[in-house]
Amino acid sequence: MPSFTLTDAVRDHWLDNFSISASDLGLPSSVPWSVTKRTLRGGRRDGVDLIQLNNGALSVAIVPTRGMSFWRGEYQGHFVGWKSPVTDGPVHPSLVNLQNAGGLGWLEGYDEMLVRCGLENNGAPYTEVVKGADGTERHITHGLHGKIGYIPAHFVAVHVNPQPPYEITIEGHVDEAKLFHTQVRMVTKITTVPGSNKLHVRDEFINLKEAPSEMQVLYHWNFGPPYLEEGSRFVAPMKTVLPRDPRGAEGIGHFDVYGAPEPGYAEQVYYFELHGEGAEGKTLAMLRDRKGNRGVLLRFSTSQLRGFTLWKNTSGLKEGYVTGLEPATNFPNARPFEKARGRVVAIPPGGSHVTETTLELIEGAEAVAKVEAEIKGLQAKGAPTIHPKPVEPFAPQV
Amino acid sequence: MPSFTLTDAVRDHWLDNFSISASDLGLPSSVPWSVTKRTLRGGRRDGVDLIQLNNGALSVAIVPTRGMSFWRGEYQGHFVGWKSPVTDGPVHPSLVNLQNAGGLGWLEGYDEMLVRCGLENNGAPYTEVVKGADGTERHITHGLHGKIGYIPAHFVAVHVNPQPPYEITIEGHVDEAKLFHTQVRMVTKITTVPGSNKLHVRDEFINLKEAPSEMQVLYHWNFGPPYLEEGSRFVAPMKTVLPRDPRGAEGIGHFDVYGAPEPGYAEQVYYFELHGEGAEGKTLAMLRDRKGNRGVLLRFSTSQLRGFTLWKNTSGLKEGYVTGLEPATNFPNARPFEKARGRVVAIPPGGSHVTETTLELIEGAEAVAKVEAEIKGLQAKGAPTIHPKPVEPFAPQV
Amino acid sequence: MPSFTLTDAVRDHWLDNFSISASDLGLPSSVPWSVTKRTLRGGRRDGVDLIQLNNGALSVAIVPTRGMSFWRGEYQGHFVGWKSPVTDGPVHPSLVNLQNAGGLGWLEGYDEMLVRCGLENNGAPYTEVVKGADGTERHITHGLHGKIGYIPAHFVAVHVNPQPPYEITIEGHVDEAKLFHTQVRMVTKITTVPGSNKLHVRDEFINLKEAPSEMQVLYHWNFGPPYLEEGSRFVAPMKTVLPRDPRGAEGIGHFDVYGAPEPGYAEQVYYFELHGEGAEGKTLAMLRDRKGNRGVLLRFSTSQLRGFTLWKNTSGLKEGYVTGLEPATNFPNARPFEKARGRVVAIPPGGSHVTETTLELIEGAEAVAKVEAEIKGLQAKGAPTIHPKPVEPFAPQV
Repeated sequence: MPSFTLTDAVRDHWLDNFSISASDLGLPSSVPWSVTKRTLRGGRRDGVDLIQLNNGALSVAIVPTRGMSFWRGEYQGHFVGWKSPVTDGPVHPSLVNLQNAGGLGWLEGYDEMLVRCGLENNGAPYTEVVKGADGTERHITHGLHGKIGYIPAHFVAVHVNPQPPYEITIEGHVDEAKLFHTQVRMVTKITTVPGSNKLHVRDEFINLKEAPSEMQVLYHWNFGPPYLEEGSRFVAPMKTVLPRDPRGAEGIGHFDVYGAPEPGYAEQVYYFELHGEGAEGKTLAMLRDRKGNRGVLLRFSTSQLRGFTLWKNTSGLKEGYVTGLEPATNFPNARPFEKARGRVVAIPPGGSHVTETTLELIEGAEAVAKVEAEIKGLQAKGAPTIHPKPVEPFAPQV
Repeated sequence: MPSFTLTDAVRDHWLDNFSISASDLGLPSSVPWSVTKRTLRGGRRDGVDLIQLNNGALSVAIVPTRGMSFWRGEYQGHFVGWKSPVTDGPVHPSLVNLQNAGGLGWLEGYDEMLVRCGLENNGAPYTEVVKGADGTERHITHGLHGKIGYIPAHFVAVHVNPQPPYEITIEGHVDEAKLFHTQVRMVTKITTVPGSNKLHVRDEFINLKEAPSEMQVLYHWNFGPPYLEEGSRFVAPMKTVLPRDPRGAEGIGHFDVYGAPEPGYAEQVYYFELHGEGAEGKTLAMLRDRKGNRGVLLRFSTSQLRGFTLWKNTSGLKEGYVTGLEPATNFPNARPFEKARGRVVAIPPGGSHVTETTLELIEGAEAVAKVEAEIKGLQAKGAPTIHPKPVEPFAPQV
Repeated sequence: MPSFTLTDAVRDHWLDNFSISASDLGLPSSVPWSVTKRTLRGGRRDGVDLIQLNNGALSVAIVPTRGMSFWRGEYQGHFVGWKSPVTDGPVHPSLVNLQNAGGLGWLEGYDEMLVRCGLENNGAPYTEVVKGADGTERHITHGLHGKIGYIPAHFVAVHVNPQPPYEITIEGHVDEAKLFHTQVRMVTKITTVPGSNKLHVRDEFINLKEAPSEMQVLYHWNFGPPYLEEGSRFVAPMKTVLPRDPRGAEGIGHFDVYGAPEPGYAEQVYYFELHGEGAEGKTLAMLRDRKGNRGVLLRFSTSQLRGFTLWKNTSGLKEGYVTGLEPATNFPNARPFEKARGRVVAIPPGGSHVTETTLELIEGAEAVAKVEAEIKGLQAKGAPTIHPKPVEPFAPQV
């Protein structure tokens, strides 16, 4: 399989620019796919590496400098992602202080279609108070959504299958590792078939320690218009539904329907257990537009990603009119809460935890209806339990 | 009007180097003005963009990478600015942790002739204690003088008026914007006429939200020798004068006179209300040398910038022998204090707040005397009220 | 003496690449020494300057971007340094938030053979609580081991003595200086003789203030295999020995012997006073392998570096199997503790504090035995006092 290493920092390998296409490789070029890589200049994006993966129908901008996040995409002319208040991104991690604003610095660069949250923690900031060596108290603030989205990949490669269906894979390695702490390497492989409406994200989290390592990961997939609009719906085979907090409880009666843009809207968050198929718990979750003509679909397994969070943020169009579909190893509560409830992954020495998610862009009423039917099939496993308030063991009761 | 875009990150436009002069444009070149731009290399300045604006008599180094600050200038052979303990600047923002030293990290790169302070807060660091989602307490430290001086501009352009007086303008856009928070774009236009002793700074702060946004800005203009020396004076049409704190109170008897360099000197700070002319409240404030042969003058309006702070820091020459003349939307107290007293600007959706300041370099006894006469004229509106101690509503009483 | 300036940020001097060898200078090239400099690309090392100093027998990678640290070395084919959990370094300082994890961010880039710790503080993080100008309490966390290892050098030069023994010197200037605080310039000169087994590190800490400046510095020399293995020994002329804390006390009975790699091992730390020769207190400390066939030796003076710390971290080979030999101006307790016991250096205005350390790589049983004999000679000054628990005035009693 032709492979091209773009970055291998440890082996001192680096390409300033890179470009490859079907015809470059002598492969059938009826679908004009391409992969290009360049370094952005100026402003807060100065020095950020960007890989444009275009399969001929679906394109996505992958950001090695920001932990292999997906900045934004396009499918058949539609924008895929959201319009963040951060308008000059992708922002270089060196310009974001994650400790700003009491651990909310993460938001200063938040503008992606997909950003992973973790690996030490995800969810809202929380503070631990520890005794220092000198006997005084020290506050440790764990910032919003952790660090993995702000760590540059030290290895980046492109692989192309020379046989049909000619899959294109972008591989990236991101280490979250330091002395005395977690030592986990994420090896992500982002794969797409030329001309398809799909993107497959396989992440392997490898424990580099000889002792166990713990980790959490949440996939913060974010979508705005044209998938999100007044009357858009969230559709999934739900086993359990609850609001994260009192603000979410206010909207529990219509948690799966979206409102119009509303300047000043305060976010509402819901936690879910989903029904899944088979031992793996294969499941799916979709955001579709009002009329059911278009949708974004995520496929994943509850055995790999057991928690699911829905983030509704239908504020003004310029303030981030967006919803997050967030499969995760856990619920984004403070880590000690999750740990006590067994929702922190322990990776044994030499072992790894694998997650797989497929993004599908759905076009047309028929295609949307087909997905809805599939979801309905899974929903037959049991009607959802809908809790009007936060409830254990999923969320702190308040 | 000939315009040259140097940086437009969002549109992927970037120039490594840029240079323009009167003759390049076929304009009269009797005054040999020029604008050049380059990127600094090495040490803590590596990657910092610097624009040298030279109008033929007055030159200033503008730093897009540091929020369009003015690093230092020169007028007719005199240095304009100050000698900071930071001797290897301008320091790249990525190398300054604003949360260091309990929110005093800002000082690690502080060496400018003009740095804007804001937009969320300015003044000394302060801490809020909030309850996190997990019920624990979290400390939020708002660092000294905010972030705007540490945010790279995402848009930079040069404009030249082809008609007399051939004004040269440097335009820069700096966004302080993130989800759930302030979303303000500063559009600065720095204008000078070839051969003149003046620099006009017009900043428009545009609310990018559909809901109201709040902001504060303080213009930290800093000057050392030759304008500052033993016996130099601060001259302005004063309505109210008070010390910020007990240390300031110690020197209230001679607040407008400067001492010689004094190693180990502790800063003294005074707050002012100034008299202004007309509805706009046009006013001015000058630092002049002992004999009244030379001065730096700021012209602004109290309707745009209602608070004025004088920072006296006559410590040793190598420790920062400097004074700050600081027109601002507020007094640099903790933001909650200012907010409660109505000194935080609320910008409506779609609206903006504009500030304009003119820097003038004054040479010669006659010119200095003329400015003093102008100030005296305004002072005729009423004698100053001088408070010996901090007093409400301007400063917390202690 | 031929001198080559690689970086002089203040004078706008910068070389992208540099290379020099004996033959380039027309000097005898029987020992093929060389000095090269380049900038690393990709991942977290993007933009890091690296100087490879190779004296023909001993080579070391010096990192101007990380405060003139030594990344790793090689002597006669042996690796000198350690294998850190940070595998993609050297990490650019702009990507490390020293305030992360309650002041443990320093560890995110910690992978060096030598990193200096200081200058404001070294040792574990500690927190001061101060009253802000607004009357509220503010926590100031002083991070692990200070900042000096994360400040890029603003001046770097190479000097070669054209006369025998043709010493090669790398000079670097690193400033830790800001308004109202410490203003110290470190001028380091790293010197080696072609073909030798030695590296001399002379650091001058110059007070740039006109008032006194205080500083602390700890030399964190770190070694793993082949010098460290089960049965390796720490050998030095000891006057006083104590554990830093209860965990160290557990191993006081065999503090000078190392165990095999042990996944999950918790660090043990010991403090020492060493015997020294003459007014300067010339002393030495060695780590040698089990059989006494190989060692790394440090020579320094107790008059310059009065505290000595031994860090034993014999955890798993992939988790950092390493020991630190750490001569310092102090013990790495919280700074207020050290200050109260007179172990913070006060540099007078215009003055400086100089430290000198020589690293020697010892090969062969005979050479190791000779060093042991020298240490035994010094030990004759008195048997060591070994405290089973932390004891004043060296460490807080617990």
